[in-house]
Amino acid sequence: MSKSGFVTRTLAIATLLMVASTPIQAAKVYRLKLAETWPSNFPVFGDAVRNMAKMAEEMSDGRLKIRIDSKNKHKAPLGIFDLVKGGQYDMGHSASYYWKGKVPETLYFTTMPFGMIAPEQYGWFNHGGGQELMDKVYSKHGLMSFPGGNTGNQMGGWFQKEINSLDDLKGLKMRIPGFAGEVMAKLGAKPTNIPPGELYTALERRTIDALEWVGPSLDLRMGFHKIAPYYYTGWHEPATELQFLVNKRKFDRLPKDLQQILKVAMKTAAYDMYIQSYNDSAVNWEKMKSDFPHIKIRTFPKEVLQALRRANDELLKDNARKSPLAKEIIQSQQEYLNKVRVWTNISDKAYLDSL
Amino acid sequence: MSKSGFVTRTLAIATLLMVASTPIQAAKVYRLKLAETWPSNFPVFGDAVRNMAKMAEEMSDGRLKIRIDSKNKHKAPLGIFDLVKGGQYDMGHSASYYWKGKVPETLYFTTMPFGMIAPEQYGWFNHGGGQELMDKVYSKHGLMSFPGGNTGNQMGGWFQKEINSLDDLKGLKMRIPGFAGEVMAKLGAKPTNIPPGELYTALERRTIDALEWVGPSLDLRMGFHKIAPYYYTGWHEPATELQFLVNKRKFDRLPKDLQQILKVAMKTAAYDMYIQSYNDSAVNWEKMKSDFPHIKIRTFPKEVLQALRRANDELLKDNARKSPLAKEIIQSQQEYLNKVRVWTNISDKAYLDSL
Repeated sequence: MSKSGFVTRTLAIATLLMVASTPIQAAKVYRLKLAETWPSNFPVFGDAVRNMAKMAEEMSDGRLKIRIDSKNKHKAPLGIFDLVKGGQYDMGHSASYYWKGKVPETLYFTTMPFGMIAPEQYGWFNHGGGQELMDKVYSKHGLMSFPGGNTGNQMGGWFQKEINSLDDLKGLKMRIPGFAGEVMAKLGAKPTNIPPGELYTALERRTIDALEWVGPSLDLRMGFHKIAPYYYTGWHEPATELQFLVNKRKFDRLPKDLQQILKVAMKTAAYDMYIQSYNDSAVNWEKMKSDFPHIKIRTFPKEVLQALRRANDELLKDNARKSPLAKEIIQSQQEYLNKVRVWTNISDKAYLDSL
Repeated sequence: MSKSGFVTRTLAIATLLMVASTPIQAAKVYRLKLAETWPSNFPVFGDAVRNMAKMAEEMSDGRLKIRIDSKNKHKAPLGIFDLVKGGQYDMGHSASYYWKGKVPETLYFTTMPFGMIAPEQYGWFNHGGGQELMDKVYSKHGLMSFPGGNTGNQMGGWFQKEINSLDDLKGLKMRIPGFAGEVMAKLGAKPTNIPPGELYTALERRTIDALEWVGPSLDLRMGFHKIAPYYYTGWHEPATELQFLVNKRKFDRLPKDLQQILKVAMKTAAYDMYIQSYNDSAVNWEKMKSDFPHIKIRTFPKEVLQALRRANDELLKDNARKSPLAKEIIQSQQEYLNKVRVWTNISDKAYLDSL
């Protein structure tokens, strides 16, 4: 064999080896770990996370794999912020208002009493400065936060007795956590928080007089409709948006295309969850109503709603006084709401009213 | 130099060459051509197409490139169905109801008078069998159709005179194309279609008495608010969903990951357009109202709306009689609407009513 023949053959073999190994070389797999606040296989909320991870994996041809740990695994359902900030997890799925005790300005990126409905709030996030304000709050902690799926308008809750006046709120023991609980407390109610697993018994045994959970999409499996006759329409969470959290350093290490895939997968999963919640609420409400036709839909009387709104406005003013950033967010939301609600009123609302 | 030294060096150079050329080899670029019904740089609708193409290109790291031809280029704004079916274009962006003269069952996948609002209709597409029915209609033509962006609730149009009774519809010359035009005709109106570029002059010179276009998101640039005092709320297009069309053979030739990227990019662009339309409607309405405070928002009287609805129901019955597939679609929509509207009424509507 001549020297050149040997070299040619060697090169040919090398070329074959290179070509054969190219796909394996190119396909470096990036693995991210995500901690969710929810238990394993939790409907709707958990579906949003699985939907996101599936889209990311399929769009990246397996180069981006996201492992999902539920609260059963990481045992810290309300510790997601710290887990992602500290880097124990690369991502999280939770709700921004859970961190208000730690970072007060996180309160505003989920939903606000008497605030925007879902398409209005997505308008604020995408076009009204909402995402930029969320970036401002979270970037200080090395975190990125994105919409994580909307439950739609949450129901005001299940009540054993009708609420006919402000007096009926005095001493009312109700499971209603967070900011809405503070609003209720200003009117003399006794807001409490009780772990989800104990809620049914507490309501049945009258340890509490009322509770709010989500809406038919998730209330059906809790069974509250079997033990409380009044289902109140919502005022306190008109568009609850969950949250994807991402550790900024981990995100920055991803190649540009995978960053984009991850962002689009999160965005799509969020929108998809809004639509799934809307559908599941309709389907589940029909079932609840047909199984338990005694359920009565009620709306709080004007007097009660006006008092709740006054209490809400006072609490917001307190918050704005305490933090210039909170003030900026509250103003941004109010200005956007004032503008967008006029449109809602002459479009969907006028249409629904005219039928 | 020894033979083995030469071989080693040659191999090292070959390896370098291979590695350098690997990304180019791996990155086979797939190019798709898309024809849109809209003119170049058309706001909102055109933004949805550009948003989709940009997401697809970035997520695929440049492996999926979509060239967008506007109507200025292909000259067939209402020929997109044929252009994509025939393979002259791989994709299209248009509206399904434009093809009702060709394939009557395509009528139902845009919006229907007195039909679903946007989140309800997305619920029907994603969870109520809507996408499957759309597949059934389009697959016969070698096409795939997906939601392409929602305008939200369209306004009922600009009127020179108030509509106070059914008599005011008799002989009313109105630009209102499509199915809604047929409904109006049944009540004695004279629906016409006039090219967009001539609409302003036609309304100003009273060649027509009224016209509907979209809503503030796109009406502002048309200037109708300067020449017609009455802006009616909507009944005829409560959730106009545009359409991405894809040639099935071309889609099947894409690698699985690019198929998924394309599908997710279309879905996200559709949702994004709904939110952009919502925002732009609010922003533009504020501007119209502040520049022309004389604009009066009106809703058709009950008597007129009830007559329009009866006419609409009769036309739908006719359609159902003519086509078993149309019947299946109409039934599916009505059943879903009956279920989902109950939820809309106790969630967003009850909330908005209570404020």
